[in-house]
This record gives sequence, structure tokens and C-alpha cells, in this order.
Amino acid sequence: MNLLLLEEADFTAADRVILRDRRLTHMQEVHGVAVGDSVRVGRIGGLMGRAEVVRLETREAELQVVLDQAPPAKLPLTLVLALPRPKMLRRVFQTVATMGVAKVILVNSYRVEKSFWQTPFLQPEAIRENLVLGLEQARDTVLPEIIIEKRFKPFVEDRLPAITDGTLGLVGHPGNYPPCPRALQEPVTLAIGPEGGWIPYEVDLLAKAGLRPVQLGERILRVETAVTALLARLF
Amino acid sequence: MNLLLLEEADFTAADRVILRDRRLTHMQEVHGVAVGDSVRVGRIGGLMGRAEVVRLETREAELQVVLDQAPPAKLPLTLVLALPRPKMLRRVFQTVATMGVAKVILVNSYRVEKSFWQTPFLQPEAIRENLVLGLEQARDTVLPEIIIEKRFKPFVEDRLPAITDGTLGLVGHPGNYPPCPRALQEPVTLAIGPEGGWIPYEVDLLAKAGLRPVQLGERILRVETAVTALLARLF
Repeated sequence: MNLLLLEEADFTAADRVILRDRRLTHMQEVHGVAVGDSVRVGRIGGLMGRAEVVRLETREAELQVVLDQAPPAKLPLTLVLALPRPKMLRRVFQTVATMGVAKVILVNSYRVEKSFWQTPFLQPEAIRENLVLGLEQARDTVLPEIIIEKRFKPFVEDRLPAITDGTLGLVGHPGNYPPCPRALQEPVTLAIGPEGGWIPYEVDLLAKAGLRPVQLGERILRVETAVTALLARLF
Repeated sequence: MNLLLLEEADFTAADRVILRDRRLTHMQEVHGVAVGDSVRVGRIGGLMGRAEVVRLETREAELQVVLDQAPPAKLPLTLVLALPRPKMLRRVFQTVATMGVAKVILVNSYRVEKSFWQTPFLQPEAIRENLVLGLEQARDTVLPEIIIEKRFKPFVEDRLPAITDGTLGLVGHPGNYPPCPRALQEPVTLAIGPEGGWIPYEVDLLAKAGLRPVQLGERILRVETAVTALLARLF
């Protein structure tokens, strides 16, 4: 945890918070803070700054907060991602939040196992919990927007063209395609397939919606690694 | 598993192997192979190709092997990595093998907890197991070389300069440094610090050995994410 994220409910005054949960435990056990110590904090969706511990008890801590710093800019990116398997999904939520993705749209794909849609990691509280872990890692306060589009064809045909409009549309796909471009300044819509990749029908449909295939070399990457590698290359 | 890796001991003739372990289980349970099916295979440290299942029993399978394809090229990279915490180390071994790193040198650092050196994931069999998982993911056959240098100062002062010689030496380090370069063709020696980063003394010592600090932006990445992001940017 490189940033202690504060929720609205933590605030007892404009510059005071009381903490009781895992954040208190973390401050005590990992950082070993004492009264008078200062920690980096950020308000969810708002500014970052520092907080001084003014009272510290076993079950709660009170902090005096100064918030004066903007969070880092988001990447100008909408990521369309075939739903990964649950364990991977959890890490992908953390990774996209850490890397600064603005918006993630989770879609179905022929190679996504139906059971993946039943995972508890898709519950709103679980999504938020993992996004918060990613923000705490990166030192950011702004939650990425997560959208679930369970039906591939209506999403790609009816809604994706408007999302792609005005952006560079790309599909990460192994094969004889141009290499993924580098160091872009413009907004991007990027689609990343499931383990085993998109099927040709899906690549065709994505192409009709304005996304052209690009490749990252002949090595096959796990979804989490592919997300990180493509983002690091693009921006 | 995108490639079934064959060990020397599996071969009963130049073009025949018998499998009995997790690879047999994986072929049966995940890929549901039958006699006559063909699977992608590679010989550890050697060529890749295809194998036909010629006999399949509950406890062993026999495959007829044709190896005719070179594995993908390695990245011209020596990665000097402060020992990550055990759970992360395991994933980092898989990631560096997947990404095609040629050589990894694990070093101590002020912010590496002493207990990390006790992890069973540093046992040679455990290292090899995780590297193999990474190679199977990427479709590669060549194990990266893993070197353990437990003492930072003698390694950096006495041995690192010769390793860095003739390569571009870089240290991934947050701060007011030049951005990490992109799309290099030349060999690189890259040092990545522990959670919390290198301390200034360590950055100075690495600089004297020929490694200059570069940064990836203001977001703080987990070690595994930083490794992937830096490699995707550099090559």
C-alpha cells in the first residue's frame, strides 16, 4: 500500500478522518506508525496529500488530513477485454487500476468458459476492492470505470463503433499483423482476447467496428502480462 | 500450456517419448486428446515441433515426435533483480521465462527482507518448475539462466561492470530521471529494485557500475508489472 485511500464515510470533518478497518491494521502492522507520524493519503475520486496521525488506539486511528495534489493522469484508453478466468480477473482489475486505464469493458468471447461469469470477483464490491488495491499500489485515487457486456455480438455491432469513433482502434492478436504501435499520444480503444485468443469471426466483427489487429511478437502471453505489455508499449 | 515441453528422460528413441506426469494429466483433462491427435511440443533447450499420440493409457502416453522449428529468439537482456517476496518471485520466474529474458541475476538490497532468502521457491527444482511453466506459456524451449548473488556490494563492484560492459546499462527507478528508452536493438543490462525501491546508496553504486536511472512515470508498479512494462518498452 503506497497510498492510504480515504472513503467519504471516513471523514468526520473536512480535514479529519477516523479509520477502523484493514487500513488501520496495515498502518500499525506494516508501517508501524505512531502518533505524530505522517502517511500518504488520497480521497477516493479526489486529491492526494498527507495525513498526520493525531490519535492511535487498538481499534481506531484519527488522522488530520491535508489534500493538495492531483492524482496522476489516466491513460486515454478504453480496454475491451474478454472475461479472464477468475484468479486472473482479480489480478487484472488490480493491474488496470495500477496502470491507469480509464475504462474497461468486459465482454464474452467464444473461448470464455461460461462458468467464468459466475465468479464472485464480478460482484460490484469485489470489483471495487481489487481496483482500490491497484490504486493504492500506483498512488492514484480515481477508480477506472468497469462495464460488463455479456453478449459479444450486440455490443460489438451496436455500441463499440461509437466507442471507437475518434480513437485508434486496435485488437491485440497473434499472427501475421503489423506490430503494436508505440508511444501514442492519441486516445486508443484496445481489445484483448481470452486465453487461446479471439476466433476469426470475432476478429472480423471487431475489425468492422474499427479495430485493426496488431501483434506483440511470437511469444504467447498470459492475459495479465499481455495487458501490461500492450499498455507499456502503446503509451 | 501452449507447448508441451519434453525432457531428455522422456525420450525412448530419437523420435519417441513416453509421458507419465502432470503433462499426461494436462493433455487428457484440459486438451482431451485421443490417439491420433497431434500436439505442439518442444525439447527443453532444443527445437519445437509436433507430436502425434500413438498410444494413450490411464497412466502413460506414447508420442511420435517431429522437431523442426527453432524456438523464438531471447531478448538481449541481463536482468538484475532485487529478490522479490516469495509469492511474487514465483510469478516473476514465470514472467521472465515467458517474456524471453536470457539471464536473471537475483541480488540482495537494503529493502529485501532477510526471510525472503529462505523461500523454497529459490530451490533449483522450484526455480526450474516455474521457468518451465513460463516457457510452456510462451512457446519457448530455452531456460533463462538464473544466478543468485546474495551480497549486493561485492557483486555490483566486482562483477557487474564486466556484465554491463558493451551493453546499455539501466536502473528502473522512480524520480526525476529520463524516461525509459524504447525499441532498442542493442543488448541491455537492466536493474529493477525491490518494493519500496533501491536506496540512494544502491543507485549510486549501480551508477558506478555503468547503470543509469530511468523512470516509467509517476505510478508505482508491483515488481512483476514493472518487469513486464520495462521489457515491453525496451524491446
